[in-house]
Order: sequence, then C-alpha cells, then structure tokens
Amino acid sequence: MKKQLLALAALILATPAHADRADEALAGDTIAWDFVEGITTEVGPRMPGTDAEARGRVWAMDWLRRNGFSNVADEPFEMETWVRGQEMAWVVAPATQPMAITALSTTSSTGSEGIEAEVVYFPTYADLVAADAGSLDGKIAFVSHDMRQTQDGSSYGFAGPARWMAPSMAASKGAVATVIRSVGTDSHRVPHTGTTTFTEGIQPIPAGALSNPDADNLERLFARGGEVRMKLILTPRDLGMTKSGNVVGEIVGSDPSLEPVLLACHLDSWDLGTGAIDDGAGCGIIAAAAKHVAAQGQPLRTVRVLFAGAEETGLWGSAAYAEAHSDEPVYVGLESDFGADRIWRIETNFTASDPDLYRELAGAVARFGVAPTRIVATGGADLNLVREQGGALIDLQQDGTRYFDLHHTADDTLDKIDPAQLRQNVAVWTAVVGILANRSAPIVRDSEE
Amino acid sequence: MKKQLLALAALILATPAHADRADEALAGDTIAWDFVEGITTEVGPRMPGTDAEARGRVWAMDWLRRNGFSNVADEPFEMETWVRGQEMAWVVAPATQPMAITALSTTSSTGSEGIEAEVVYFPTYADLVAADAGSLDGKIAFVSHDMRQTQDGSSYGFAGPARWMAPSMAASKGAVATVIRSVGTDSHRVPHTGTTTFTEGIQPIPAGALSNPDADNLERLFARGGEVRMKLILTPRDLGMTKSGNVVGEIVGSDPSLEPVLLACHLDSWDLGTGAIDDGAGCGIIAAAAKHVAAQGQPLRTVRVLFAGAEETGLWGSAAYAEAHSDEPVYVGLESDFGADRIWRIETNFTASDPDLYRELAGAVARFGVAPTRIVATGGADLNLVREQGGALIDLQQDGTRYFDLHHTADDTLDKIDPAQLRQNVAVWTAVVGILANRSAPIVRDSEE
Repeated sequence: MKKQLLALAALILATPAHADRADEALAGDTIAWDFVEGITTEVGPRMPGTDAEARGRVWAMDWLRRNGFSNVADEPFEMETWVRGQEMAWVVAPATQPMAITALSTTSSTGSEGIEAEVVYFPTYADLVAADAGSLDGKIAFVSHDMRQTQDGSSYGFAGPARWMAPSMAASKGAVATVIRSVGTDSHRVPHTGTTTFTEGIQPIPAGALSNPDADNLERLFARGGEVRMKLILTPRDLGMTKSGNVVGEIVGSDPSLEPVLLACHLDSWDLGTGAIDDGAGCGIIAAAAKHVAAQGQPLRTVRVLFAGAEETGLWGSAAYAEAHSDEPVYVGLESDFGADRIWRIETNFTASDPDLYRELAGAVARFGVAPTRIVATGGADLNLVREQGGALIDLQQDGTRYFDLHHTADDTLDKIDPAQLRQNVAVWTAVVGILANRSAPIVRDSEE
Repeated sequence: MKKQLLALAALILATPAHADRADEALAGDTIAWDFVEGITTEVGPRMPGTDAEARGRVWAMDWLRRNGFSNVADEPFEMETWVRGQEMAWVVAPATQPMAITALSTTSSTGSEGIEAEVVYFPTYADLVAADAGSLDGKIAFVSHDMRQTQDGSSYGFAGPARWMAPSMAASKGAVATVIRSVGTDSHRVPHTGTTTFTEGIQPIPAGALSNPDADNLERLFARGGEVRMKLILTPRDLGMTKSGNVVGEIVGSDPSLEPVLLACHLDSWDLGTGAIDDGAGCGIIAAAAKHVAAQGQPLRTVRVLFAGAEETGLWGSAAYAEAHSDEPVYVGLESDFGADRIWRIETNFTASDPDLYRELAGAVARFGVAPTRIVATGGADLNLVREQGGALIDLQQDGTRYFDLHHTADDTLDKIDPAQLRQNVAVWTAVVGILANRSAPIVRDSEE
C-alpha cells in the first residue's frame, strides 16, 4: 500500500499550469451559480419529453449564446415519454394510515380505483430473488433494501437493484404491484423516484417507492406479525413518442484539425424537484469551466458542451448523440452529474498509459484538495459516444455523501447547493479543461485499460 | 447579571431526592419510546374530530390500562371539524412550474377548478398590514415572513403571525387567497400546516403554506420584476360538529384529600405526519414519568395524565377539560408538547414565592443538565384549567432548535426522535413529578407572578 501511495505522490510533483484562471474561478466564480439559479427559478422541473424540458432547452440555448458560446443548437430526437399521475398509498390493515409514495418509470397504472392486496416483505432484493415462483400471486411485494451514505456513491450499486429490477422480478413471481424503500439516504417524507426495467416478456406492473420513514413504519408493522395490506393508486401514463433534444454549444478552438474536448451534463430532470443538483449544477459547472478557459485566450482545441436531454428516463439523449456524432472522434470526455459538492479525486482511463498527462492534471488540481488514484475512469451516462469510440475519459469525482439524500426527490432544489463547493468544482474543471484544450499531443491509451 | 446567576446557583445546592428512579429512567427507560413507537406505527396521524383520532383514543386507553393506570376514561366533547382536500399550486407566469403547498385550517376551498390570480409579495406580515385597503382586490397575497431556529422556540412568536393572521388581513384588503412561506425552519419540500384565524366579519378565503424552497423560488421570481401569477387548488371541507375526546388516566395517590398533580400532552396530531414529536412523544414522556413514580411506591397525591384531544385545530380538548373539571383544584400542572429533545431549563410560576420548593426541584434536575431561571412559567396549551384556577405551573423547557424543522409537517415521524434525549426527558419528569406527588405542603403562590 505504501509503495502505491508513493507512486501516486510522484505523479503530482509537476508545477501546475493554467493556475491563474482556476484560482480566479475558486475565488469568485458566479457563472455556474447563475446558470443553476436561473434554470431552477425560471424553468423549474424539466421532465424528459415534455414541454417543460423543451422550455429548458430554449432557456439554455439563450444562456449559452449570452455567455459567448458558438454553434449553439438543439439536436432533436424522438423518445418514449412517461408522465406521473396520481400517487397515493395507504396501509389498510392492520389499521388504515396514509403513506408517502412516488411512482417509478416506466411502470403501469393501477387505474383510478387503485389496487388493494396483501403485502409480502422482503428485506433485500436477494430475498425477493429467492422467493418461489408463483408465491406472490395477487400480492404486493415490498422490498426494503437499505441504503447508507457513501462518499463515492457506491451504495447506489448496492441498493439500486431494489429499484432497477425488483418490480420485474416481483411481477415474474405473480405480484400485482411492488413498493420499494426509496433508494435514498435521507429521512424525509419525499420518496425517491427513478426508472425500473421490466425484463423482456414480463408485463409491467404498478410500482412505487415509499419514503424512508414510511418504509420504516411498514417494517415495524411486519415486525408485529399478522397480515399487512396496502392500497395503491398510481396512475402514470405513457405518452408514446414525443420530441426531446440535446443542446450543444462550443468554444471554438484555433486548430480545427484537432479533436474537441467534450464536456457533458444533462439538462432534463425529474419532475418532483427542480433539477438543481441533478443536474442543473453539472451544466453550470461545465459551462463555467469552458467560459473561464475561453477567457484565457482562444484554446487550441474546441471545447464542446453537451447538455444532454432525457437522461433520467433512459439515457435517450446520450444514445441520440452517440448515433448522430459517431464519426466525430473526441479527444477526451468528461461529465459532471453527481451534484455540486466538492471534487475529491481525479480518475482517468489513461493514468497508466499516459502518466505524464495524468501527472500534469493531478498536479494542477492538487491544491484544490483533489487526490490522485489508480481507479480507472468509466465516464458518465451521457458519454456513450466516447465509450463507443474507446476514447479517453476523466472522472472528476464529487463528494457524494449528501447526494442520495436529494437525488430524484422533491428536495432537489437550489437551496441544497453550497456556493463555495460549487466554486471548487468550477476551479478544478477550469484547471483540467485548460490543460486539455491547449494540448496538441494525443492521449496515450492502453487497450488493456 | 453576575448577582442574578449567583442567586440562581444558590437555589440548586440542595441534595436531590427521588434520584434513584430518575437515574434509572435516564439509563434505560423504554416506556416513553414504547408509547410513541406504538401510536405512530399502529395508528399513525390523528386528525382532530376524525375516526383516526378516535382510534388513537382507543389505542391510548388500552395502553394506559396495560401500563397500570386506573380510572382510564375517554371524556367526549363536540368540535367543529375541518379536513384537508386536494392541495396543488403552480406558478403560471412568467412560466409554469409546480409548487409544494398545504392548506391551513380553517380556510375555505378554491373549488376543484381552482383560483388563478396575480400574486403580490410581502416580505413580512407588517408589510401586509401596511398595504392599502382594497389594494389586493382579486389578487393573491404572498407573505414570506422568514423564521430561523431558536433554542427556546421564540421565533415562532416572531414568524407565527404570518400564519395566524395574514389570511384574514389579506382578505380584509380584498385578496382572493393567501399563500405564506411555511412557518418552519427546515429546507425540505414538506410545507408546514397549522391554523389561521379570520377576524369576526371577515369571510374566510383559501390559504396555504408553501415549503421554504418554494417560497425562496417565488422570492427569486419577484426579484426579477414583472408580474407573477399563481394557480391554487385547495379543497378542504368543514365537516360540521363531530366527536372528539380527552383521554385521562391516574396513578391514584394515598391521600384523596390532596389535589392531584396534572400532567398534560395532546393525543391528536396533524394529518400530514404521524404525530411523533407533536405530540406522541409528550404523551409518552408524561406517562412514563407517572409510571416510574408509581414504581417507587404509591405516591401521596394522585398523578393524573391528560391526553388532550383536538389541540391542533383550536385547543378544543383543553377547553372541554377546563369546563368539565372547573370545580376540581389542581396542585400543579405540567405539560410536555415541544418535541422530544432534551430539557434544558426549569421554569415555574412560584420560583420567587416558594423558593424552597423551586430549589428542591431545580436541584433534583441539575444533574441532567437542566438550568434554573427567573423566567415565569405560563403552562402549555392544554393547561387551561390550571390557568383559569390561577394554579401552580411548571414548564420543563425542551430544546426547540430542531422543533420547527418538523412541526406540522409530513416529516413529523418516529425516526426524528432521539431515544437518548427522550430518556433524558423522562428522567427529568420522573424527578420532578416524584417530588411533587409525594409532597403534602401547599405551593406558595404570589398573586403578582
């Protein structure tokens, strides 16, 4: 372990370049805040495929143009759109009381009369998987997979299957509906929405997430023994194919023969909050960094921002962008989509193959408290194009401790953003993008990485 | 100031009596938790005048009997009952976005079609008071009186008028509806409900509270200038007169000629949460203290617990109890209705007139971190009987720093209770009630206090 740490320390001995602009961003950037304050206040929630998302694109294009970006465009695509309806739930036995619930996309409707059934309790997703075929006939499955805060967000991988797969798994065993404990780490009555996927051949059923306090209450009722019954009214609708789009803009580089640096975020949000940490902040951060880099003088490479559409309900924008731009090689891809808390680690997928570049990047951000690592970057959800090209990726890892308190809830609002930590993000991005955009050499990639 | 502090310090030099049982409560009480865990899990919200409140009374009487209380009864009374309907709000200009709102009682309905109107912004209640007569004709008043955390809860007195009086004041100036910033100190999308009062001759209008993040957003829209319009759908209903009741129970004392010690809380709750901190915890605390005192041997005086009904929508239970028991003198009244966080100060209305007793009480709780004070106790909302009798009152002041984060919201749930702080409450109450219930001497009261 010690040897590894010394090796990492050796990576960051270089004197950082492009420090001035990054320091300025740290001290006083207001660009990222201006973006996220504006879009959350003036547009609010931006549900994929809806008019609200379209208003967000118009707003963002106007903002990019006002802030000096070129080639600003809305690249349209079609998508299947799901919207929320009524959302109500009650325990009806042993006694009646209401519960806070929100539907998962793209689940089906209970109809306006709702569904009432006995509830079967599964502490974890693995317990549901182990249940016998047909054992849930006519019943509601309750999966209460617990999630705790982690700095790197890895608990999402642990608890996530309860949302991603439990409704389909329960349906395959005969369940008429599924309720899950929210995949979230807060203790407020604001349940966490999100997508779930039904396996080919499994008919979608209604499914919703209970807030953590409600899931706690349901667990206490099961601990007492006896039958627990619930009634659910969840009436989401599929709107069929509607229009969404990716917003792009550029700081045009001086050498058009060089591949661009691609900075991604997503502009859509869930409907429950106003899309502040997910992902208004990310768009603000990448746009602010691009603008700070431009202010240093025209960069060598074009810096392209991709404000992807319709990320939340199935990465539609990422897929559309990858398809539309498949023949356009990217120099390196970076994404900001994990809130607005401080960056604590820099990961790349060329740390071993291009140690000089990694040393330069890590050295440039060390003074912002960003640590090096051997962990290999995998890129964000909207970087499909870069992954498909086998391109270079950098993950500027944000502190995710608080992220899943807010993620996909009504609480994803502007007040949750700490302006000082937002500025640290912009400073780190400015330092990194400044180096990349002014570098002509190719990035050495090892196919084994 | 120093002289006063020394005088207070002198009050608490006495060696505490009845310490053993209080220490035991501090170390391991589970009675208060058993009560609040039980009623929040098995009954849930207990809205005044509804079947849910009635189920709470049945549950509580059963609990009291199982825990050794005598003379357990439900003392019925009639009350005017108001229940919530649909609650939706949107900003519709300059652009449409939804807002989280909850209706205040006992406001009127917008009808299912709702009301849409221009919004007029008042930063504080005083600004609304200063508005010209008729200046709100056809408009919605928005009062954004800001509230911050205070340990003693005094900020409720500062911000409270925005809820208690703004809708009536706005109606008197022609407003068709009122929205207020929640009278609360959190930053979650869980608006705070509560009562408001319309002045005689003023026709009630629809009125609701926005969550703090929504009020922030509305303020940011006003800061941009231009007309702001909202649509409200709030459809509460008056159910007319329905039945509620006060639950009582006793630890019977050995000397029936002595006046009882009266311990109060309220059993009802708002419908949004499950009534954990407001006031399931209070009922658990007083019942646990009474039971711990009984476990020391039969007390001299009867200890009577009053689980008042229908406190939230107008102190109906307190009034009914005061009327039904007006001819029964009380030795001293105490109430627990400020959450479950630790007691930090002991106030009485006989500190100056009966310093020996105050010294004994303050001395007994000093080891639990409870400080003396010259502040005169005024008693809780359900102690009308004692106030009307001019009787002795003790306020065991709880730390209210977090209280208005949760008060009257959907977030008032069991997980918000810290078991260690709950036990400290029981220990302090056990020490105080143990002294009072075993004391034959009258309490010396000064009519000037």
